[in-house]
Amino acid sequence: MSRPWNELSRPIEGYFLEDFEPDRVFHHATPRTITAGDVSLYIALTGARHPLHCSEPLARSVGYPACPVDDFLLFNIAFGKTVPDVSYNAVANLGYADVRFRAPVYAGDTITCESRVIGVKENSSGKNGVVYVTSTAMNQQGVEVLGWDRWVMVAKRPGARTPPTVIPPLTDEVPATEYNVSRSLQIAAMDHEHTGSARLWDDYAPGDVIDHPGGMTVEESDHMLATRLYQNNARVHFDAHLAQGNQFRRRLVYGGHVISLCRALSFDGLENAFAVTAIHAGTHAHPTFAGDTLYCRHVVTAREALPRRRDVGALRLRMLGVKNLDPRELPALGADEKHPAVVLDLDYSVLIARRQNP
Amino acid sequence: MSRPWNELSRPIEGYFLEDFEPDRVFHHATPRTITAGDVSLYIALTGARHPLHCSEPLARSVGYPACPVDDFLLFNIAFGKTVPDVSYNAVANLGYADVRFRAPVYAGDTITCESRVIGVKENSSGKNGVVYVTSTAMNQQGVEVLGWDRWVMVAKRPGARTPPTVIPPLTDEVPATEYNVSRSLQIAAMDHEHTGSARLWDDYAPGDVIDHPGGMTVEESDHMLATRLYQNNARVHFDAHLAQGNQFRRRLVYGGHVISLCRALSFDGLENAFAVTAIHAGTHAHPTFAGDTLYCRHVVTAREALPRRRDVGALRLRMLGVKNLDPRELPALGADEKHPAVVLDLDYSVLIARRQNP
Amino acid sequence: MSRPWNELSRPIEGYFLEDFEPDRVFHHATPRTITAGDVSLYIALTGARHPLHCSEPLARSVGYPACPVDDFLLFNIAFGKTVPDVSYNAVANLGYADVRFRAPVYAGDTITCESRVIGVKENSSGKNGVVYVTSTAMNQQGVEVLGWDRWVMVAKRPGARTPPTVIPPLTDEVPATEYNVSRSLQIAAMDHEHTGSARLWDDYAPGDVIDHPGGMTVEESDHMLATRLYQNNARVHFDAHLAQGNQFRRRLVYGGHVISLCRALSFDGLENAFAVTAIHAGTHAHPTFAGDTLYCRHVVTAREALPRRRDVGALRLRMLGVKNLDPRELPALGADEKHPAVVLDLDYSVLIARRQNP
Repeated sequence: MSRPWNELSRPIEGYFLEDFEPDRVFHHATPRTITAGDVSLYIALTGARHPLHCSEPLARSVGYPACPVDDFLLFNIAFGKTVPDVSYNAVANLGYADVRFRAPVYAGDTITCESRVIGVKENSSGKNGVVYVTSTAMNQQGVEVLGWDRWVMVAKRPGARTPPTVIPPLTDEVPATEYNVSRSLQIAAMDHEHTGSARLWDDYAPGDVIDHPGGMTVEESDHMLATRLYQNNARVHFDAHLAQGNQFRRRLVYGGHVISLCRALSFDGLENAFAVTAIHAGTHAHPTFAGDTLYCRHVVTAREALPRRRDVGALRLRMLGVKNLDPRELPALGADEKHPAVVLDLDYSVLIARRQNP
Repeated sequence: MSRPWNELSRPIEGYFLEDFEPDRVFHHATPRTITAGDVSLYIALTGARHPLHCSEPLARSVGYPACPVDDFLLFNIAFGKTVPDVSYNAVANLGYADVRFRAPVYAGDTITCESRVIGVKENSSGKNGVVYVTSTAMNQQGVEVLGWDRWVMVAKRPGARTPPTVIPPLTDEVPATEYNVSRSLQIAAMDHEHTGSARLWDDYAPGDVIDHPGGMTVEESDHMLATRLYQNNARVHFDAHLAQGNQFRRRLVYGGHVISLCRALSFDGLENAFAVTAIHAGTHAHPTFAGDTLYCRHVVTAREALPRRRDVGALRLRMLGVKNLDPRELPALGADEKHPAVVLDLDYSVLIARRQNP
Repeated sequence: MSRPWNELSRPIEGYFLEDFEPDRVFHHATPRTITAGDVSLYIALTGARHPLHCSEPLARSVGYPACPVDDFLLFNIAFGKTVPDVSYNAVANLGYADVRFRAPVYAGDTITCESRVIGVKENSSGKNGVVYVTSTAMNQQGVEVLGWDRWVMVAKRPGARTPPTVIPPLTDEVPATEYNVSRSLQIAAMDHEHTGSARLWDDYAPGDVIDHPGGMTVEESDHMLATRLYQNNARVHFDAHLAQGNQFRRRLVYGGHVISLCRALSFDGLENAFAVTAIHAGTHAHPTFAGDTLYCRHVVTAREALPRRRDVGALRLRMLGVKNLDPRELPALGADEKHPAVVLDLDYSVLIARRQNP
């Protein structure tokens, strides 16, 4: 080992803005074997009810070797791996792009993750700046299962010198032609009884608004359990003593938990949307705190046909996470329009079976 | 598919009173493979300590192929399957009858569930009514593992027409001759050390009162985690924002969680009661809220011998779930007598080893 | 069975001081098969991030047959087994000595536990006294995996006669020559990327102070879930109604949960300390309550070489659990010095890889 040990080690206090030189690569710590225990906890934390993630016989009957892990469980575990390096000293999580779910993951798979810095820009205050990273999660065979770009506001050490500004090109959508759909998947074999709904791809149209009826009040224990399950150690979620000094004077709910809750709530109305295939863009518009009740509205923005598949299509959706307001009371929002009750605004696509004509 | 898709789909807002025509059958969604993760969570949520449910070598030593799942974990998962169809718009859960635990369930088994409407009766208010259903849970081989009747008060859509009144016959007990006891079970082989008690069937007598010493304070996170684990999506347990409009102005604890906690508390005093075999009747007498502390009293109402078994018998018990009151301060209650501190009144039977005379 | 059943049974209300005759042996109830569900819950409850406990391929690459269970998960489960017999009527948990982690434990192993009374001493008040026990946890092959001595203040029944005073000899350290290190362990094969740090045995020195940056606020649900997972039924952790009558007027957090949280927080700074090998001594100096935020300071007290191992050494550490105070604001404390913010003071040793010179 010729390099000194400290250069090979994450600083105990985490990395700061000036550490994020473009092209620097972080091989994140704590590879993780996903287990049936994680899957049960995810159900208990979110109330997720899609049967493909909890019925082994059903998963096998449509061509999977076992239950695929819920996409957002994978996302949150993979994201959690990046936090100690990328966002331990984050001020805010600004956005996502080019999130691609590339292969299903099963209990027993082991996830590792790495990130490359693709951009950095100091803010005019000189106290912090924006870091852009592209991250990749792989299974134990080295197969990429998830990739995403993300930008985050990170604190700077006083007086440190920031690398020259690099603003990376960011995609604003993942093309439907590039969605991953397994060749062995035979989703048309699934009886509608298993989801309780025969509403399929054909039954949704751009402009459709679905105000999901459920609401979920978030407790401190709930979001901390979820965030620890993901081994995400960002202090802002856990440390009430420290939080007395922040602008909100309390802990913030991890944004990935908000996404997971909205996805789970949306089962009533999107029962057959069995997989998330891409997140085109997304922002956490406002913070969520313990005691808030989350609701979800979906707006269908496109119905996407997929190459060489007549049995499955995609729906492009706008997921609006709404807090402390019945979503039926939320006005229609323009594409970039904000609303004080909207905490999450996600542009993403899901896979859903198409009706088979006899 | 000749019928229109919407007739095959659960309405997003759930079913209402007028949808429950007698003999209508609901094949409930979300089949569920029970896993070791569910079993661990059940222990963490309830503190259950019966060793048959958590020691694989012990379970095998008495004739099971693996640890049978705790009976109330099965009950709550099966019950949870019925909620989106039967009680999403429930006003109150009124009672149970003819609950039969017909076969043990193991981690790896997949549970599906269906219900048939056996009765309906509009209330005089015209705003709601009582729905009676008989429900059946099956494993992946189609073997019925649990069956139960239940009645529940369900809201009516304004102006809707209710089906004609049908009041079903309801049993007031499951005969002991019909309890399921596996032929391969050799419970007498279990050393008393594993439960910490040599108190057996022979040592209990009708009229015995057992005030279990433990108490369990329920937090919002606890009951919501449990209820989500069961994929029970009844809004009254989760949505504090909506609950501001109900008579209690807060979330209610799912009654099945109350039963599970009382069963777990009763281990100290009923250490060798290794299985629940039937619930003859039961009511949730008062609601439980976060912050309440639950205690449990049992009254032995009968000692039941079983056909062709000298090694195992049954105890018929009255389980009283008591809140915020040391059960030793609870007076003796007549058969149908109510008490403001009693939230749960369950007439059920458990299996327990008999003393073997050498 | 010649002895009466009640002598073979734990009293429903638990044992009291006068029941602890020296040399009495308790074979604790509820053997427990540890599962992947327990491991997931432990991560969710503590935020533990050491990769050996959550990456199967990594564990195998360094010579384990599978992921070893986190040492404090094992400790807490084993300790929990003893509570119904030893400390159900405990007033306070006074101290630990001679805690030895003798063999790794894996998901699928079944833990049983027994304790022998090694001392007893009535307090001058006559209301309670100190019980000393030595406890042993075994796996399903009868191999001792963990042993420890512990003393605890236990209530006396009014008027009962206490056995004559016996004060046992207690060790004040486990010799490093007796630490268990598996011959098949090849920890040097582990790439530093997996922990995010190349800080090894060689890089720590006696006197080093590490103030770990993370903090964890404890909620009632969190500590109760953890304590129930361990099947520890001490009422003081669960029963808010009863707690109104104690000196603190609220529930106390189980001390083992405090240890687990401090161990998890210390990953940032002790990333390569992959196993706990012994606890020499330890005390819970003050109680922890829901709402408290826990931090951790470690002081390195010795660097211990191990017989016949050049690849792995031990660090002897003083773990200080600190509440509601940034540990950087904690003064240096003398060996027996107390501080009102210090809730936990543990003298223990961890295993950590040594640098390999090429």
